[in-house]
Amino acid sequence: MTRDDALATDNADLLSEYRDHFHIPDADVIYLDGNSLGRPTLEGVERIENTLHEEWGRGLVRSWRREWIGLPEQIGDLLAPIIGASPGEVLIADQTSVNLFKLASAALAATGRTDIVLDDSNFPSDLYVLDAVARAAGGHLRIASADRTAGPTVDDLDPLLDEHVGVVSLSHVGFKTGALADMHEITATAHNAGALALWDLSHSAGVVPVDLNAYNVDLAVGCTYKYLNGGPGAPAFLYVRWDLQEHLATPIPGWFGHADMFAFDPTYSPAPGIRRFAAGTPPILSLRGAQAGISLSAEAGIEAIRTKSVQLTEFLIARYDARLAGLGFALGSPRNPDRRGGHVSVHHPHAYPIAQALIDRNVIPDFRAPDTIRLGLAPLYTAFTEVWDAVEVFADVVESGAYRDYPATPEGVT
Amino acid sequence: MTRDDALATDNADLLSEYRDHFHIPDADVIYLDGNSLGRPTLEGVERIENTLHEEWGRGLVRSWRREWIGLPEQIGDLLAPIIGASPGEVLIADQTSVNLFKLASAALAATGRTDIVLDDSNFPSDLYVLDAVARAAGGHLRIASADRTAGPTVDDLDPLLDEHVGVVSLSHVGFKTGALADMHEITATAHNAGALALWDLSHSAGVVPVDLNAYNVDLAVGCTYKYLNGGPGAPAFLYVRWDLQEHLATPIPGWFGHADMFAFDPTYSPAPGIRRFAAGTPPILSLRGAQAGISLSAEAGIEAIRTKSVQLTEFLIARYDARLAGLGFALGSPRNPDRRGGHVSVHHPHAYPIAQALIDRNVIPDFRAPDTIRLGLAPLYTAFTEVWDAVEVFADVVESGAYRDYPATPEGVT
Repeated sequence: MTRDDALATDNADLLSEYRDHFHIPDADVIYLDGNSLGRPTLEGVERIENTLHEEWGRGLVRSWRREWIGLPEQIGDLLAPIIGASPGEVLIADQTSVNLFKLASAALAATGRTDIVLDDSNFPSDLYVLDAVARAAGGHLRIASADRTAGPTVDDLDPLLDEHVGVVSLSHVGFKTGALADMHEITATAHNAGALALWDLSHSAGVVPVDLNAYNVDLAVGCTYKYLNGGPGAPAFLYVRWDLQEHLATPIPGWFGHADMFAFDPTYSPAPGIRRFAAGTPPILSLRGAQAGISLSAEAGIEAIRTKSVQLTEFLIARYDARLAGLGFALGSPRNPDRRGGHVSVHHPHAYPIAQALIDRNVIPDFRAPDTIRLGLAPLYTAFTEVWDAVEVFADVVESGAYRDYPATPEGVT
Repeated sequence: MTRDDALATDNADLLSEYRDHFHIPDADVIYLDGNSLGRPTLEGVERIENTLHEEWGRGLVRSWRREWIGLPEQIGDLLAPIIGASPGEVLIADQTSVNLFKLASAALAATGRTDIVLDDSNFPSDLYVLDAVARAAGGHLRIASADRTAGPTVDDLDPLLDEHVGVVSLSHVGFKTGALADMHEITATAHNAGALALWDLSHSAGVVPVDLNAYNVDLAVGCTYKYLNGGPGAPAFLYVRWDLQEHLATPIPGWFGHADMFAFDPTYSPAPGIRRFAAGTPPILSLRGAQAGISLSAEAGIEAIRTKSVQLTEFLIARYDARLAGLGFALGSPRNPDRRGGHVSVHHPHAYPIAQALIDRNVIPDFRAPDTIRLGLAPLYTAFTEVWDAVEVFADVVESGAYRDYPATPEGVT
């Protein structure tokens, strides 16, 4: 395999034109952290500037009724097909942690149960929030130990399930491992135990097809700033299966979730649909970025995105085997592409200084303490030649010992 | 009094230069709804564009450590002097409803009490959220009936206080009436009953000096998109008195509130200061707007802003008496400027069509069902001649009967 093979793959790539839809002022930077913060879309930049100058500047408060008020549901409907949901089941609102809090709290109240099952590869913020939710309900977390690389399975979770468990809440793709959980089997297992399944899609939305409706998933949350390219801290989303919506009460009933918010009714009446899970006024500028990013993913199509994503991670692992496996690295992600999301993790005892050396050489990965480097491959703008070149820089940094010029740990580094 | 008097006042206005700091593409529009959504600052437009193109576009994920991670506390410290707080007591986070939920829940848990006292002039979203918080604690709301124009007083609230009340939560300035509550007396009364005082500053922050520290206020929340000109749905703020911070636990412990968020510790340890009340990733683009708006208010100085604000509302009421009082209107705000915030409300049986007729004539007020028109006067960009001209248009719309060309109610109007 040569770099020309990578170039040939780029030339045959049906999604290659999508790179032109992004604002890329630094074409010499190989950006492998789109799973942490995606690049800006050109349409997002344009929409946000228009919102600044025209909608806010000229339209002023009138833009709420003209343009903004329905956006959280409209953008939710744009996102729905990307995650296998139906119109009216997805809302853009708040941040992932807040949405997780709202849905997990509502789910425990609706089931009359107190405990939550999850696994130790879940994102730490999810652990914190779910622990608080379970304790507030008089229960506690039950945490499965998942295999470090493979992610959680039914066998890990099943022994923890009983009649006190109201919610099973997992990450669809592990934030460190990139492992893709079996949403179908795990959701069915939760249902068999009388629990609701609540999935965090932050690392799968926009890169892995999600089949919420097909698997009868109850609840989901996720962010829009990774593969959906919504912008730093762009508002998150939440999904509630349509027939559950009227049975769940948000613990934070704000005016944006009221049936008639401009009536300024002193009594709360939830909106009939998914909007009942909204709380306060959404941040419109950040919302416009999410809208543009989600639109672009919808246009490209999640199946085409997944096809290229698998090609990219397979290609990366082939290059890893050829160039990095002998240099003290261990692969931290599943080799089976059916069990892998959009990023690949590698472990190395010197992961931190290696990551810093890469950044100084215009290859941007993501470091996760203590020893993990994540390589996020964003199908809408990552090229196969970039993967080739990045691995060469990676190997050079280790072989040459260049990483030894950097601090050994992030302590004291800001 | 003539229009020349208004012009002379504009010419003597020490804050008049601040209008040049705003993006005003429509100088013919008289904007009297800055208490709902303030105008964009030029610095905000510039900062947001720079964040789009440079920090996000070029800096990518690196901008979190370089630029963004400390913003919620840094901007909180910028806001602190405007509301009489100290550095380390204010955080920009989430939306007002979510912050109210967090602080009220934490306050009930800390006091071991179950009930919340408020009044019926409070913002409806606050009623909904506080009702949910009290019910979740096993208690209920106790709602005082405040006089429609004067706002809540100690006499309204005192009979409702006893050893079950953990929180007294009021709006500092009433959203309909513009009435300014006596924060000093009411906070002291809450403390005498062993309750914590939680103020919603949405309609006072940036227009009325707030003395949180001087009055020993425990907790406060508010938005940044009104007089602080942060932009539509810009993130809100929360204040927790420094010596209370370690005694309160947020019900939504997310990773942005963790002592060491990048350690990805599976166990939650709250950050030592105000950051412990953060939850998820903040929306950076919207946050940059808030930063610019707050900076501008801080530069102008809240005492100078208040001086002009009182001049503006006094001038408006004088013009109201001269031109509108005989046309079927009733004044809905206190006449005593010491008991009034930054906006003035008027009632009229035909308030809705009158507001629509005004908007068509480039005078933008705010309608609040069923019969209220709010006139928000933003000292940083509202001119006395604008107030004069707006009242003339107002009078003309009523005297000429032009308002009869508009729908009588908002029903069916979007």
